[in-house]
Amino acid sequence: MGRKEVVEMARQELRVGFIGLGIMGEPMVRNVLKAGFPLTVFNRTSAKTERLRDEGAKVANSPAELGPDSDVIVSCVSDTPDVLEVILDPQHGVIAKVRDGTTVIDCSTAGPDAAKQCDQALREKGAAFLDAPISGGDVGARDGTLSIMVGGDRGHFDRAKPVLEAMGKTITYCGQCGAGYITKLCNQICGAINLLGVAEAISLATAAGIDTEAMVTAVSSGAAGSWMLTHLGPKMLTRDDSPGFFVDYQLKDLRIASDAAHSLGVPLPGLGLAEAMFRAASAGGHGRDGTQAIYHVLEKLRGG
Amino acid sequence: MGRKEVVEMARQELRVGFIGLGIMGEPMVRNVLKAGFPLTVFNRTSAKTERLRDEGAKVANSPAELGPDSDVIVSCVSDTPDVLEVILDPQHGVIAKVRDGTTVIDCSTAGPDAAKQCDQALREKGAAFLDAPISGGDVGARDGTLSIMVGGDRGHFDRAKPVLEAMGKTITYCGQCGAGYITKLCNQICGAINLLGVAEAISLATAAGIDTEAMVTAVSSGAAGSWMLTHLGPKMLTRDDSPGFFVDYQLKDLRIASDAAHSLGVPLPGLGLAEAMFRAASAGGHGRDGTQAIYHVLEKLRGG
Repeated sequence: MGRKEVVEMARQELRVGFIGLGIMGEPMVRNVLKAGFPLTVFNRTSAKTERLRDEGAKVANSPAELGPDSDVIVSCVSDTPDVLEVILDPQHGVIAKVRDGTTVIDCSTAGPDAAKQCDQALREKGAAFLDAPISGGDVGARDGTLSIMVGGDRGHFDRAKPVLEAMGKTITYCGQCGAGYITKLCNQICGAINLLGVAEAISLATAAGIDTEAMVTAVSSGAAGSWMLTHLGPKMLTRDDSPGFFVDYQLKDLRIASDAAHSLGVPLPGLGLAEAMFRAASAGGHGRDGTQAIYHVLEKLRGG
Repeated sequence: MGRKEVVEMARQELRVGFIGLGIMGEPMVRNVLKAGFPLTVFNRTSAKTERLRDEGAKVANSPAELGPDSDVIVSCVSDTPDVLEVILDPQHGVIAKVRDGTTVIDCSTAGPDAAKQCDQALREKGAAFLDAPISGGDVGARDGTLSIMVGGDRGHFDRAKPVLEAMGKTITYCGQCGAGYITKLCNQICGAINLLGVAEAISLATAAGIDTEAMVTAVSSGAAGSWMLTHLGPKMLTRDDSPGFFVDYQLKDLRIASDAAHSLGVPLPGLGLAEAMFRAASAGGHGRDGTQAIYHVLEKLRGG
């Protein structure tokens, strides 16, 4: 039997449990279903699970109940406390009934300390934890083109890979437990500081009264070019605050990054500044606007 | 006579004077020669002018002497004081003998106040000033693929465009006098803050002991991706400080940007921080290293 057949067999055998049918989770679950994995879902509110039942999924009443029917359990919730609750709650969490050999994968953005807690607790039950945060937005979740950054046991990663491949396109193994979360936090740090740079360039150009569109085009083509400048620069210019990624989510992620930097003893002045600027955007009523709304903060600072 | 012919005629008629045969200026001059413009050059030290004389250029003994023989005078020097000197020095500067109708183009990175001074003085002589800073590095200068950002009189811009096109690929008209310098400063702000974000992400990843190469690859492919991350991130990982663009040049440009922001009353906290970090890199002995050497500062901050 060749490698391809083994993977195909593994795919057919892997029964998947899924926790969290939010803006990311729901389309991810649909791609898992489409790929042919036997699926059981849990969501805090049940409206969405009913629709999935019609599409062939089984429905569980708690994360714990996924245990007996799942070889791989995927969670996709909001924040570190939610991750800890759905996985570690002794009564309703995954930990309560998880089977020996199960791979538990969390796709939320959380801190490396949470990864270590989950890893340790699941290990005691013979299961494993992979931290596997995602990026690519709701569009990536729908199209199955997410980028997934994974930390944890390599054997469990290899086994669960077909499930990850059903949800994402670029699957990167980043190292031991917590490496996935750290990579995602690096992504958030890099992107947030980058966006601050874009907003400051636009702030100066606007105050100077030059052709801001020409500036964005000229800068995009060179060494200062970036995804943020190309995609969010024009939105700043047209004062379009429509969200691709909420200011409040960015702020939550920077807070987690900041905690991780604190734990590791890493001074990151740009992160501190970016966090303050996004906090100001949120305080200014832009929490549910897209991250480009950070330009409002600079506008206010210059008396606008 | 069609537009093409008019442009061709204009090209043949435009006699070019060039000031500053540095790492950028020398290859730019070669491209002006190659395009067939009659050329006179001036450089502070004469070794380089002799070589160009062999290639068909005339040589002047001062910027002033370029005046009688030039329809377009291009300068490419280091800093704002150099720009003011070669253009405005009453005895040796361009201003001394510039003819009515001449277009004076400065390709240095300087501040908008300098543009206004040059513009005003040259206007009084019937000449015009275009601020036209460049980006793309020595490779772009050699290959004629520079990005050139131009501010000033539109008519003079249109007339001088064939000369700009001999030196660069992306020629952007950014607005009135000073708009070119401002656009370049926006470029430097955007790029420097962006690079700080890259360095901070790498600092956290390194301290956490994850696979930093996998991190850079994963982050590059998404919304936090940028030229800086793709091109300078890997250099930080391999501790390769070889210069594409010197820390000290970056610092000089950020200083000019900071002055411009001050003049315009624009608070730019990220710029302030980036300037401090590049100043620390320079103070740490990395002035002649590439800008990626900013990671040394973060390394020091975390006790490395």
